Amino acid sequence: MEFKVNSKELEKLLGKIIPAVPTRTPMPILENFLFEVKDGQLTVYATDLEISLKSSLNVVTEENIKLVVPARLLNDIVRSLKETTIHFKLTTNKKLNLITDTGKYSLSYLDPEEYPEIPTITADKNNKDINEVNIDGLELKQAFEKSAFAMSKEEMRPAMMGTLFEFTEEGLRFVTTDGHRLVNLLKKNIKANFNQQYVIPERAVSVLMKVLDEKEVKIHLTKTYVSFKLSDIELITRLIAQKYPDYSSVIPLENEYLMKVNAKEIHDSIKRMMLFSTSSTRRVKFSISKENLDISAEDLDIGASGEEKVACSYNGENLEIGFNSAYVNDILNHIVGEEEITFKLHSPTKAVIIEPVQKKENQDVLMLLMPVRLNT
Amino acid sequence: MEFKVNSKELEKLLGKIIPAVPTRTPMPILENFLFEVKDGQLTVYATDLEISLKSSLNVVTEENIKLVVPARLLNDIVRSLKETTIHFKLTTNKKLNLITDTGKYSLSYLDPEEYPEIPTITADKNNKDINEVNIDGLELKQAFEKSAFAMSKEEMRPAMMGTLFEFTEEGLRFVTTDGHRLVNLLKKNIKANFNQQYVIPERAVSVLMKVLDEKEVKIHLTKTYVSFKLSDIELITRLIAQKYPDYSSVIPLENEYLMKVNAKEIHDSIKRMMLFSTSSTRRVKFSISKENLDISAEDLDIGASGEEKVACSYNGENLEIGFNSAYVNDILNHIVGEEEITFKLHSPTKAVIIEPVQKKENQDVLMLLMPVRLNT
Repeated sequence: MEFKVNSKELEKLLGKIIPAVPTRTPMPILENFLFEVKDGQLTVYATDLEISLKSSLNVVTEENIKLVVPARLLNDIVRSLKETTIHFKLTTNKKLNLITDTGKYSLSYLDPEEYPEIPTITADKNNKDINEVNIDGLELKQAFEKSAFAMSKEEMRPAMMGTLFEFTEEGLRFVTTDGHRLVNLLKKNIKANFNQQYVIPERAVSVLMKVLDEKEVKIHLTKTYVSFKLSDIELITRLIAQKYPDYSSVIPLENEYLMKVNAKEIHDSIKRMMLFSTSSTRRVKFSISKENLDISAEDLDIGASGEEKVACSYNGENLEIGFNSAYVNDILNHIVGEEEITFKLHSPTKAVIIEPVQKKENQDVLMLLMPVRLNT
Repeated sequence: MEFKVNSKELEKLLGKIIPAVPTRTPMPILENFLFEVKDGQLTVYATDLEISLKSSLNVVTEENIKLVVPARLLNDIVRSLKETTIHFKLTTNKKLNLITDTGKYSLSYLDPEEYPEIPTITADKNNKDINEVNIDGLELKQAFEKSAFAMSKEEMRPAMMGTLFEFTEEGLRFVTTDGHRLVNLLKKNIKANFNQQYVIPERAVSVLMKVLDEKEVKIHLTKTYVSFKLSDIELITRLIAQKYPDYSSVIPLENEYLMKVNAKEIHDSIKRMMLFSTSSTRRVKFSISKENLDISAEDLDIGASGEEKVACSYNGENLEIGFNSAYVNDILNHIVGEEEITFKLHSPTKAVIIEPVQKKENQDVLMLLMPVRLNT
């Protein structure tokens, strides 16, 4: 069995698939690619049992075969080659040889039977169990980028370790939360002909952020799997089977005190105050009055403290409220490109809403942050 | 006590001094800067007891004082500020306050008595114990960059953990070796009016590589210390007190077989072969004949192997010789910008000399590499 392929084309393809190869796994077989050569096409698969990636390219061959090859070593070899034709050839002693004009490289391969099965979702308009929607790749990427940071890392509540993907009449809603902060992002221009909730695991989101581009993405959703079909690669992920918590019940409606502040000024100030907040609590204090936001922090361990003034415009009663400075920083990192932001407050113990002052036409974004107690 | 300083000027100064602050030290006092305000000048010192750095700038003040302040915290604060005037002020309760238009930051400081003494070398033409030489900063930097990689990390032989700085009639010679490879670099255009050997510790070399620029460096050398005076910073380092081994005795003179090879081609090939060399030995095999260098490697642990052909021109008998691929790669990384290189060989067990084909007018560079046995 043999086939020929251009090294740079193969490098591009392997580079797209390798993100699905796990770095540490109790199942060494997952550190391999599955190669399938069929009817003049090479399809490469990788999976960590939660997500799988596949992509294809045309090769010169006359036979069909499946084999399992070490993913990182093959990727490293192909990346290190100049543009050339690689001649893949199986030998009788279970070796895969890669032959170029100047070199010959030999790897061990495994039989395809040892590789786990890759799930497939076949598009079928008549199958009511499969929902289908097309989304602009960049829009999807930006929505993930704005929201992914707030997903939980705690295994106690598995649903919160993913991103809620909620198709509603208003549009597609992305929700993430770890109990301390929450992002609620509505893309009004993404409409589907069904209303349904799906919870996409963190790893699928993080790989998608790497591979999405401006091309359209075809999404097929079943009760257990979602497939994201990009122009040259397909990602299939298992869905998180748990129901997502009722996020709307935690978003306060009566936060009547509004503080408007320059986004960059408050962000710069928070970054400096992080230097002074005690590493165990990371607490900063906001003292808010009509035209002045005083931000202060104190690190008792090293005997250092800092305080800064930021101009604001505030319509409520004077208020002192504490936050985890790292969480405030996370939120400000993800409200990018906004000139002014609004903090909607009610009391030192009630969740705070942070929103851009300037609303976008097709998008509603709301970030929620829980305060921390000041007198502990 | 108070003084005022521009934040960006102070940021620049602290950024130059902080490389001398140790990251892990059993003496926490060394994680501080020593600040000395005297006659309208602020001088900042840092030391790890082996090297010390100092630099000064003008400040607005009417008093003189010394104090010890936390280095990383102060550096982080000053870096995070926009351009502004910082007003430094000592309070009665042992706090150092930094006051700007919008913020106030408070740090604990320590008394200067707790800080170790910083050695000084006072230039004095009449003192015969002090040698003096001026060197172009870039030339010195490039010489360190070409040779530093071969310094030993083994504490068994302290002299080899430094760079030999040998002033001779031919010029200034830089020698580094760890017993497996050796760099011998002669700068013929750097002449001094004395012949002497000095061994500069690794940390001084690595900090100098960061701070050297195109300006001239004034060097003062005593038996125990060297001072490098740059335009705006001074580094003083303790010398390694041990005698440097006799490097010239290990450089073979009778290597009569010459192999000329394209530097980039052999380097690319070595990088690929590193993927196949067993991680414990990292061995590659060179099989050299008149016009062909075959490079091969085998990783028995994973059952992979590779071999490549590189064109060469060789005047000796056919030869098989083994090397540590990482060491070959190191050497090729540091023979930068050369089109062709020569390997001077004698036998599979004898040290090999690697040199650029094209000699530079003011510089002789010789790299030496010990082979490894093939049949183990």
